[in-house]
Amino acid sequence: MSKAEVILLDCWISPFCMRVKIALEEKGVAYESQAEDLFGGKSELLLTSNPHGKVPVLLHNGKPVSESAIIVAYIDESWSSSPLLPPCAYGRAQARFWADYIDKKVFDAGKAIFMSKGEAVEVGKKDFIEIIKTLEKALGDKDFFNGDTFGFVDIIGIAMTSWFPAYEKFGSFKLEDHCPKFSAWIKRSWQRESVAKVIPEAEKVIEFVTMFRKMMGAED
Amino acid sequence: MSKAEVILLDCWISPFCMRVKIALEEKGVAYESQAEDLFGGKSELLLTSNPHGKVPVLLHNGKPVSESAIIVAYIDESWSSSPLLPPCAYGRAQARFWADYIDKKVFDAGKAIFMSKGEAVEVGKKDFIEIIKTLEKALGDKDFFNGDTFGFVDIIGIAMTSWFPAYEKFGSFKLEDHCPKFSAWIKRSWQRESVAKVIPEAEKVIEFVTMFRKMMGAED
Repeated sequence: MSKAEVILLDCWISPFCMRVKIALEEKGVAYESQAEDLFGGKSELLLTSNPHGKVPVLLHNGKPVSESAIIVAYIDESWSSSPLLPPCAYGRAQARFWADYIDKKVFDAGKAIFMSKGEAVEVGKKDFIEIIKTLEKALGDKDFFNGDTFGFVDIIGIAMTSWFPAYEKFGSFKLEDHCPKFSAWIKRSWQRESVAKVIPEAEKVIEFVTMFRKMMGAED
Repeated sequence: MSKAEVILLDCWISPFCMRVKIALEEKGVAYESQAEDLFGGKSELLLTSNPHGKVPVLLHNGKPVSESAIIVAYIDESWSSSPLLPPCAYGRAQARFWADYIDKKVFDAGKAIFMSKGEAVEVGKKDFIEIIKTLEKALGDKDFFNGDTFGFVDIIGIAMTSWFPAYEKFGSFKLEDHCPKFSAWIKRSWQRESVAKVIPEAEKVIEFVTMFRKMMGAED
């Protein structure tokens, strides 16, 4: 397969793009990343490929797929090696539920920490830790969300953790003190080649979030 | 199969519950509806079955599945007759995209009409019509979203239209004047037995929304 058959409209700092790249790495699919400049204007290709006009968009032989969790499921169904979703309908429903839970909760909760000031930071931090505790309960004593193997929920979740160093910095806390099992899952997952290759260095994420806070007037 | 093998934690006015009931009707699956009193206190079963504590929850042989679109996909995968999702990975990704688009946009846009006053109603109406126009474009000249047969996106979308009579009343507009093809799809779909059986009468929906507006202080 030629590399250009799989193109990702990408942004290095987007956890949603990271999900797609981790899934492609897990499947061993070669792809071309086309960086979008989200502040400098989006490409015509991005705007015409996704009605939301957002990265990531995966172009597979020219046909666009949008929304990161939908793209990861599409990758799983299109390249059958190393399945990411469980084989039974009930397992798949559970995996989709937790992926959706992460989508609905984690990013917004993190934003409520790093975009806030004073007392609101404490409220945001409390909410964030509650959400991670719910996820920690779903993880239980398993190595990964579906058991022994790294799969769909792990990909959806681990990409979000790329921003956790910024939440910890601006919220002045250590997640490990509150959620030791979830933190062990993060460490375990970050050791995977697919994840290590995709997740940017913590300092670079913190630098970006610091700049973003200033831009949005969240800093004095 | 005994009826009690499939139990739905249900609420008659919830479009999200309607989705599940339409899917079960399409598949010919017998089920027991257990009404939840959302204002009077939720059942222990609901609170322990879904981390969000929200209807609908489908209990299949006692095992809970939550989130309406995930439940509909689970029903499709568990009962193979009359498939709802397309057979190819790309078709499924497209169907999931539009279901997700409906989830992210339609209910909130409707709420912005019926919970607003004065100028805000006009803004809400304009946004709502734009969203339906995007969906109308995705429908194109087809009878249903996936072509000739009523499927996943149709179920996800048609349930939302149960509240449209209330949006039209409180927004003082007729969707048909703006989106004739989408309105024809509504009429076509409402004629299906599965849909007709599940969607409540327009007057009852309007009565509920009127009461809800009063309760929430959106009425003078």
